[in-house]
Amino acid sequence: MTINTNHPTENQARQMRENHPQSYNCWLQYNAIDDVSVASFYRSFCQSFVVLCDRTPLINSAIDELQRGITSLLGETPTETGKDDNQLVLGTLEDVAQEDILDRISLANLNEEGYCIRMDERQHQLYVLGKTEKGILYAVFHLLRKMQLNEILTTEEVIEQPVNQIRMMNHWDNVDGSIERGYAGLSFFYQQNRFSRQWDRMHDYARMLASIGINAVTINNVNVHQVESEFITAAFLPDVARTADIFRAYNIKLFLSANYSSPMQLGGLSSADPLADDVREWWKEKASEIYAAIPDFGGFVIKADSENRPGPFTYGRTHADGANMLGEALAPHGGILIWRCFVYNCHQDWRDKTTDRARAAYDHFMPLDGQFNDNVILQIKNGPMDFQVREGVSPLLGAMKDTNQILEFQIAQEYTGQQKHLCYLVPQWKDVLNFDTYAKGEGSFVKDVASGSLYERPLSGIAAVANSGDAYNWTGHPLAQANLYGYGRLVWNPELSADAIASEWITQTYGNHATVLKTIKEMLLQSLQTYENYTAPLGVGWMVNPNHHYGPNVDGYEYSAWGTYHFADLHGIGVDRTMQTGTGYTSQYFPENEKRYESLEACPDELVLFFHHVPYTHQLHSGKSVIQHIYDTHFEGAEQAEQLREQWKSIKELIDEERFNDGLTRFNLQVDSAKEWRDIINTYFYRKSGIEDEHGRTIYS
Amino acid sequence: MTINTNHPTENQARQMRENHPQSYNCWLQYNAIDDVSVASFYRSFCQSFVVLCDRTPLINSAIDELQRGITSLLGETPTETGKDDNQLVLGTLEDVAQEDILDRISLANLNEEGYCIRMDERQHQLYVLGKTEKGILYAVFHLLRKMQLNEILTTEEVIEQPVNQIRMMNHWDNVDGSIERGYAGLSFFYQQNRFSRQWDRMHDYARMLASIGINAVTINNVNVHQVESEFITAAFLPDVARTADIFRAYNIKLFLSANYSSPMQLGGLSSADPLADDVREWWKEKASEIYAAIPDFGGFVIKADSENRPGPFTYGRTHADGANMLGEALAPHGGILIWRCFVYNCHQDWRDKTTDRARAAYDHFMPLDGQFNDNVILQIKNGPMDFQVREGVSPLLGAMKDTNQILEFQIAQEYTGQQKHLCYLVPQWKDVLNFDTYAKGEGSFVKDVASGSLYERPLSGIAAVANSGDAYNWTGHPLAQANLYGYGRLVWNPELSADAIASEWITQTYGNHATVLKTIKEMLLQSLQTYENYTAPLGVGWMVNPNHHYGPNVDGYEYSAWGTYHFADLHGIGVDRTMQTGTGYTSQYFPENEKRYESLEACPDELVLFFHHVPYTHQLHSGKSVIQHIYDTHFEGAEQAEQLREQWKSIKELIDEERFNDGLTRFNLQVDSAKEWRDIINTYFYRKSGIEDEHGRTIYS
Repeated sequence: MTINTNHPTENQARQMRENHPQSYNCWLQYNAIDDVSVASFYRSFCQSFVVLCDRTPLINSAIDELQRGITSLLGETPTETGKDDNQLVLGTLEDVAQEDILDRISLANLNEEGYCIRMDERQHQLYVLGKTEKGILYAVFHLLRKMQLNEILTTEEVIEQPVNQIRMMNHWDNVDGSIERGYAGLSFFYQQNRFSRQWDRMHDYARMLASIGINAVTINNVNVHQVESEFITAAFLPDVARTADIFRAYNIKLFLSANYSSPMQLGGLSSADPLADDVREWWKEKASEIYAAIPDFGGFVIKADSENRPGPFTYGRTHADGANMLGEALAPHGGILIWRCFVYNCHQDWRDKTTDRARAAYDHFMPLDGQFNDNVILQIKNGPMDFQVREGVSPLLGAMKDTNQILEFQIAQEYTGQQKHLCYLVPQWKDVLNFDTYAKGEGSFVKDVASGSLYERPLSGIAAVANSGDAYNWTGHPLAQANLYGYGRLVWNPELSADAIASEWITQTYGNHATVLKTIKEMLLQSLQTYENYTAPLGVGWMVNPNHHYGPNVDGYEYSAWGTYHFADLHGIGVDRTMQTGTGYTSQYFPENEKRYESLEACPDELVLFFHHVPYTHQLHSGKSVIQHIYDTHFEGAEQAEQLREQWKSIKELIDEERFNDGLTRFNLQVDSAKEWRDIINTYFYRKSGIEDEHGRTIYS
Repeated sequence: MTINTNHPTENQARQMRENHPQSYNCWLQYNAIDDVSVASFYRSFCQSFVVLCDRTPLINSAIDELQRGITSLLGETPTETGKDDNQLVLGTLEDVAQEDILDRISLANLNEEGYCIRMDERQHQLYVLGKTEKGILYAVFHLLRKMQLNEILTTEEVIEQPVNQIRMMNHWDNVDGSIERGYAGLSFFYQQNRFSRQWDRMHDYARMLASIGINAVTINNVNVHQVESEFITAAFLPDVARTADIFRAYNIKLFLSANYSSPMQLGGLSSADPLADDVREWWKEKASEIYAAIPDFGGFVIKADSENRPGPFTYGRTHADGANMLGEALAPHGGILIWRCFVYNCHQDWRDKTTDRARAAYDHFMPLDGQFNDNVILQIKNGPMDFQVREGVSPLLGAMKDTNQILEFQIAQEYTGQQKHLCYLVPQWKDVLNFDTYAKGEGSFVKDVASGSLYERPLSGIAAVANSGDAYNWTGHPLAQANLYGYGRLVWNPELSADAIASEWITQTYGNHATVLKTIKEMLLQSLQTYENYTAPLGVGWMVNPNHHYGPNVDGYEYSAWGTYHFADLHGIGVDRTMQTGTGYTSQYFPENEKRYESLEACPDELVLFFHHVPYTHQLHSGKSVIQHIYDTHFEGAEQAEQLREQWKSIKELIDEERFNDGLTRFNLQVDSAKEWRDIINTYFYRKSGIEDEHGRTIYS
């Protein structure tokens, strides 16, 4: 294996750090602490530090971050010494086992990523301790977060551990440098069918992910094209391994999206039949080859038999056959196989009202419950359709009690404004996590499925499609960084509120100004509802332009093969998914939810068109008719978009020019787009229903 | 100037001729004449030939074609001799002036492209005579056509001349090898930002064009991109000149589409202001440079201030300023400047019902009548919108009595099935040509505008967007060759019927089988109505998918910036273009047409939605309601598409396998697409109107 050292290795990261420090550094600004008492408090511990444990790349990352952060926050660089007074003590719990400083009981069950921060009783030393070295890294980021928030530690000890086991980021980057559904520039992993080798930038990205607790990453698109299929060959493995090295130093395991038909494409076999001996053998050998290059390789993410991707169906085999075959190849090396459940008929006939894409994941996978190996995980999107601003929660979540499950979110704003519009997604994700599936009776929340606690599964967690790219601010819209941050923090601890996460992020990112905090927080927390208001109403979804999915097009997917319809006619609108008269999708929920959604009376307003086809005159719980709701929310939404812009303008003098202007450019786009949404949606339904707005506002005829 | 001789010069033409002879040769099959008496008749003249005039490249083309054709048709190669008995005599009228064989009076006014074919009284010699050498070439093709049609000559002399002066083909080929709106493969002119140098193929193409009388060609897209702008520089002029050589030998003048802002892009000037001295000087020098390379260069075609192309508006100048400036640069060399009138607001607000794209060309250009130089021609699309299957005839045609005009058709089937659907366009073009503008009272037909006879203009003619590409059959759909052929023949003589042209083409292309002739002719002549039936009804147009324009999408352009709307609501549909209540577009016609279109009662059914917004229940002259007409034509059209396929299948054994299969593949696509059109259009209007089909056929709800 040779590495072409002539390949450009432009140090883009350094340039960006220098030219765009505030945009580039996101929430790791480490601005000097201006509160004297807080600075004084921390200064007392931060003159020096001692490291009790062995030095590993991971520990070095922790120490680097600690020195970088403290230097910047306090203006003084802590020096490494022996054990001393007035210092930071870094180590594992075991390293301090002989010291009588810890409450052993409360720490006994801490998982390997857990940590503890506490002062000794005399407040001479600050212990920054991990159950293992992983916890030390997270403890350091915790400490630095507290410092950035200008919060002093109390004498109470901090004990923390992640709630979710796998906390994953899925990159849909293509090796040609493009990003599928990418809205923040091109890929920083790849360019021109090669790894970009912007190792510095990858390193900075790994730091950011670690700071919010991400511990797993896929670096290539789930749609694995020709060249990407070769990532698991000698041509690419050295670059993959180098990337894995960088992430490993931040406790992030590297996974690859793999092409299900690799045995044919790479191995020259005549099939990819999961039950064929030569196919199974090929994957086993391939796994050995990969693990020889990357001993702690995470495993594969597979999109199979979905949207025209190859899969086991070709050979009359099941998803379980396909997934287990790959799982078996990975198992001897401790690898994991993640199989996506985004499987549906993307060649549907729009004339056929009995087929329902929402049913597809459950119909495909539920019968296979219990058939998947222990190192296989099914990855299930939060909704049964595809990351709409509003849809039901996937009924598959919680339904499979004998199968590992990982929940999939999308940080990339594919259907929520594409990082041109502000749409803070944490409230949406919280709604999903707090959704009660009733799988084991009341209180069987989706967050308990994700954490693995509901069925005590060996593997579980949450993954999300990343929203990052090679833009100097990583996310295009400067405020879209909040979604990246929020995802990590929420997945670490689903009990954190959207408000608290927003506060944390704003303060670390924009500093401690109360007006900035108040303004941006209001903007973030209002933004999801605003976006929903001016786009597709009442859970119906999909009224977007085909392919790129930006901007309004009410009939854009109405006569397509994608299974995404609204069925609006002159009388009414919505998809009847009831058992009584519709597709029967409601029956996939546990009885409590089934009843709620099946009944038009009980169905919550915001999902009424997702579950029912109703006349425009149907009266919602809000007291409004459906048509009046459409008009009202669209007028309101467009006004709210203008309001967002005004709020942003109001803090112009309080933040840096670059981020202000980058935001303003996008708020201008959002305001225009929101008006377009308002007028097209309103006109479409006015033309169709013939019903006037009660308030006589302008609806174009 | 250096030519990179390493550039690939694959002899694609020879390969295609050998591997796909019938597909590739189109209507120049020259199959052996199987009628003994016809063969015998021609054989008596075709043993030898004499050439009375000087040998030029053009005469050589004529002789080459004559020898090629006769050799193939009669199995014997005529030899060139001195004057003899029983031979073909080629020359100009002047060459035979001393022989008392011609009716001098009828030939006196023949134009320079005219010709005469006649036997001497003893039927010993067949005279193939041109007014000039150009006429000899056309006379040879005429003779070969007669032979291919197995028609013997009578003793009456043939006297022919083209009705239209400029008979032009516009290629929308891009130098990257793509073709804008190309449906027959890639460009054979270019590949990878270079001329392809497939000179043989260009030569074969020139022969084909000459055989149908084309005498002018542009070889690059009217949207002139970066690299194409450099065609008029030393980097590309040698290849342009070589291409011009090939076309010149077939009496085809080469024109280029030029970038209006070339003085800036190529010349580094600070503006392209048509009244700026440096700009005017730049173009004059540029013209001299071009004419040094190509002494008979035709001139420029310019798309300016249209669809975001640069133009004189930037400098507050008029189209006349821009066009005349370029005309003046070309005039000393005998060049022509063609200025396209496809100018409209492509950033229209769909909410604005007063702006009407149909008005745009007239509104822009009519006030400038009389201001254009004598070597400037305005190129006007046949309809005011853009090559829809049905629209009104452009009111600008005939309106400008003091301006040269050239009519623009589109052979490429952008909106008429993209060469996947069969759509023989000659009947549509004939409707346009036979449209009475009433410009100078009754009988002021569009064909008289095109021929220049209406106002006795110095320059006039017809241009069309080509449908050819590097497919082995040139046009993708094998029957789309009929449009290429038909265009040339119709432009030569607009009095030819669609039926007669079809007969000519079928017999030359598929041979003399009566069933083949009857079947394909029925298919061709029915195809336009069939396509109109299952697509956008009653002249409303535009119900296509955005950008690529293939397949149904009723609202595809309804809320766009392109000015292409149907305004369908629950009550009715159509664009009110009347003076009384609409956009006033009807006022652009001369009074007779204005009255006809202004009045809902007088307006012909097929254009009712182009001119009026009417309720679905409006009764047409046919006695049907609008909605019932929509349902009926869509059911009928889809059935007719199936019928076309059945007709094609019925001649499977009578034609070669390759062309049959190429046709069948496309008829299968057409049948499926027609059903999709039928169901989407019917469902859309059923959902919108709520009105049932009178005949209870299946309309999906």
